Amino acid sequence: MINLNESAFKRVKEMIDRSDEVGVSAFKAGCGATIVDAGINSRGSYEAGRLFAEACLGGLGSVSFAVDLELSVPSVVVKVANPSVACLASQYAGWALKGEGFYALGSGPARSLYGNEPLYATLGYRERSSVAVLAIESSKFPPDSLLETVAACCKVDISNLYVLIASTNSLAGSIQIVSRVVETALHKLFELGYDVSKVLHGFGTCPIPPLPEDFMTAMGWTNDAVLYGGKVWITLRDEVAVDSLVEKLPSSSSSDYGLPFLDLFKRYNYDFYQVDPMLFSPAVVTVNNLATGHLSSVGRKNAQLLRREWFR
Amino acid sequence: MINLNESAFKRVKEMIDRSDEVGVSAFKAGCGATIVDAGINSRGSYEAGRLFAEACLGGLGSVSFAVDLELSVPSVVVKVANPSVACLASQYAGWALKGEGFYALGSGPARSLYGNEPLYATLGYRERSSVAVLAIESSKFPPDSLLETVAACCKVDISNLYVLIASTNSLAGSIQIVSRVVETALHKLFELGYDVSKVLHGFGTCPIPPLPEDFMTAMGWTNDAVLYGGKVWITLRDEVAVDSLVEKLPSSSSSDYGLPFLDLFKRYNYDFYQVDPMLFSPAVVTVNNLATGHLSSVGRKNAQLLRREWFR
Amino acid sequence: MINLNESAFKRVKEMIDRSDEVGVSAFKAGCGATIVDAGINSRGSYEAGRLFAEACLGGLGSVSFAVDLELSVPSVVVKVANPSVACLASQYAGWALKGEGFYALGSGPARSLYGNEPLYATLGYRERSSVAVLAIESSKFPPDSLLETVAACCKVDISNLYVLIASTNSLAGSIQIVSRVVETALHKLFELGYDVSKVLHGFGTCPIPPLPEDFMTAMGWTNDAVLYGGKVWITLRDEVAVDSLVEKLPSSSSSDYGLPFLDLFKRYNYDFYQVDPMLFSPAVVTVNNLATGHLSSVGRKNAQLLRREWFR
Repeated sequence: MINLNESAFKRVKEMIDRSDEVGVSAFKAGCGATIVDAGINSRGSYEAGRLFAEACLGGLGSVSFAVDLELSVPSVVVKVANPSVACLASQYAGWALKGEGFYALGSGPARSLYGNEPLYATLGYRERSSVAVLAIESSKFPPDSLLETVAACCKVDISNLYVLIASTNSLAGSIQIVSRVVETALHKLFELGYDVSKVLHGFGTCPIPPLPEDFMTAMGWTNDAVLYGGKVWITLRDEVAVDSLVEKLPSSSSSDYGLPFLDLFKRYNYDFYQVDPMLFSPAVVTVNNLATGHLSSVGRKNAQLLRREWFR
Repeated sequence: MINLNESAFKRVKEMIDRSDEVGVSAFKAGCGATIVDAGINSRGSYEAGRLFAEACLGGLGSVSFAVDLELSVPSVVVKVANPSVACLASQYAGWALKGEGFYALGSGPARSLYGNEPLYATLGYRERSSVAVLAIESSKFPPDSLLETVAACCKVDISNLYVLIASTNSLAGSIQIVSRVVETALHKLFELGYDVSKVLHGFGTCPIPPLPEDFMTAMGWTNDAVLYGGKVWITLRDEVAVDSLVEKLPSSSSSDYGLPFLDLFKRYNYDFYQVDPMLFSPAVVTVNNLATGHLSSVGRKNAQLLRREWFR
Repeated sequence: MINLNESAFKRVKEMIDRSDEVGVSAFKAGCGATIVDAGINSRGSYEAGRLFAEACLGGLGSVSFAVDLELSVPSVVVKVANPSVACLASQYAGWALKGEGFYALGSGPARSLYGNEPLYATLGYRERSSVAVLAIESSKFPPDSLLETVAACCKVDISNLYVLIASTNSLAGSIQIVSRVVETALHKLFELGYDVSKVLHGFGTCPIPPLPEDFMTAMGWTNDAVLYGGKVWITLRDEVAVDSLVEKLPSSSSSDYGLPFLDLFKRYNYDFYQVDPMLFSPAVVTVNNLATGHLSSVGRKNAQLLRREWFR
């Protein structure tokens, strides 16, 4: 049986055991939960980013590094087994964490213990586990009261709650975000009403953006990395042709395509919900439908936009 | 001492221990052998393909993943120590398995326990091991009687016989086949009468073809991946110049070069033995002869043929 | 706490445990130190090169393999956490080992136990460890008396001294040298008087040159691989602009740039110290200063020079 949280915990344990080597710091919060800081007060590392991202994938995916030759920056290479579970039940940032002035999105396998998001009903996936691994993208630590709520929602003893945390403009934070490149394709399929359980395999690559000083720019650059630099390959089996669906998969199918994310965000007065949800997907999506054979590839990488944005 | 079967068994054990994560299913056949289905009734995964391929290499090689930029598809990167043993004594699909209407080629280190193929005499390599790992490319499971024969040939207790199996048109099957890219160069050297023990190191890369619905197309596409997309680097030490040999190494040295394998196969009325054996090698082979220094590179990748064949 | 020597020892132990698989031989010298021959009388392998290089990085970095598409040769991809410690306190070849007609440069974490090089005072890094791992680039084994001196300098029992050794023109030797690509950028920063503790992350790639017959050519080609083929990305945090510094980082900032290293060496009558020290750095260096954001990239790869030199 898959246990996303147990598999994630193996990576968390490696981060704790090698904390000085990978540049993270682990400590017990007052409430008893363990926090692994991979990019707030800690510098992190490429290796910390890899372990963070693999924990988010619940052991079903792995991340390695390469060079994006068109952009001449380091990139992630992500391979995913069982993509609907790995990406949506585990990796997706779907848990809105709020409390005492703290707000952040939670991702990772702990979500599947709570199972409160509507997507779990559609996926038909829920988990029971004595350990919970939650990932948070934030530059502040969550308050103890919130962690207690999380542990209760996950039905784990708070001493078995492990929280990975990194800011958007840290290296590990940036890596775990762009490692969601396959997830953005899966989530778009899900939003389009497609039965994502038909997706058998996922593979993706995404450039790692430079780290800016401020959160807002980092949010813009990590989004742009996926929207204008991400490439995803998915294998699915569908008895009917999926061509019209494939057309909608890359970011270029959105009317909001073409501007840096931050410019778009400003145009919409920093209201995330006005941005076309169809924008959030990789630049290029290639689909192999086992039932019909062959590859269909849609979209194109916009290296020019990213080079202009990232290089001086 | 090298023990190809024991090293392969470590990967088999990892596949079994993580069977749900990597998408394989392991079970005991009636005869007592353990079958690891990585692509018949199981969906498999990139990770299952990696472990399958590394088991076939008997622990002497490793497989990682990259993107083939010319083709824009995922690819394997294979590095091989002790190539004559890794590729020929272990990985090569040289055992014709027949019985009760079943026919398939067996590969992997179990072959070196039987040692019945003529190449073992030339290599001077034989193995004794209490565990045997055999890999089979097939969409059907082998009959118990055949497994009993295999165990007897390998001189292992049948409860210690482990069979990895995946169909040609499964992801893990496809990956383990294209991961033979270095082996095809070694085998061609062997067929040309070259003393392959002079080959010190091997490195290769090969695109992973899309998965088609049927076996026959899969066989064509995996062959084409190697013939028209595979690149291999070998390091050898030979006191004499090997230039004339190097000329013969890539697939383009064959008169049958240039057509998709399936077209060729049809032209020869599906008689494998009419296809020029010199065709079966990578598109590009680069040789570093330590004794003379420098690299000699012959052949070229035919990305156009593969794109036309794989993309719609 | 980081323990560079203990982390390096894990890779050494893996090399010893898998010695036949990775093509190395381990033996006790008369004095009691353990020698791991990865490329004198042993053939080595890509895997031995990886483990050797990772040992030199003291567990703070990892090495994987890719293909350099411009050159069409295998390459290393190196990621480094805590680069000033990983590269300078550990990986840098800074210990001149002399005795009984033997001369070679020592690298790796054992240097940080001795701490005799001036750079340790600047770095403020010293280590105590019961095990010492020293790497040597040589085609001869060091005399026992020298090993005894090393053990004494490192304050370890000689039975806990582990020496990795490979010649420059062996595969593992070549890999461990070109895996210093990030180190060459760090060392240049250090030589320019920059506070290298400001460097947070390092990433690099470098082609692996072919293996020639003789040491001198190998020295030339491994140097050229870095100088004309190496690419490095570093992330640092500096409140002031570092543009004028960045300009000096690639090899092309040196007046000696443009000739194969061996030609240069001959021109200077084989006197290493006449070569402009500013030459020793990667072909391309890209800096991300967190305080100002964005990437600055300086230098360019000279694929033409390397192709002319390595291919026939």
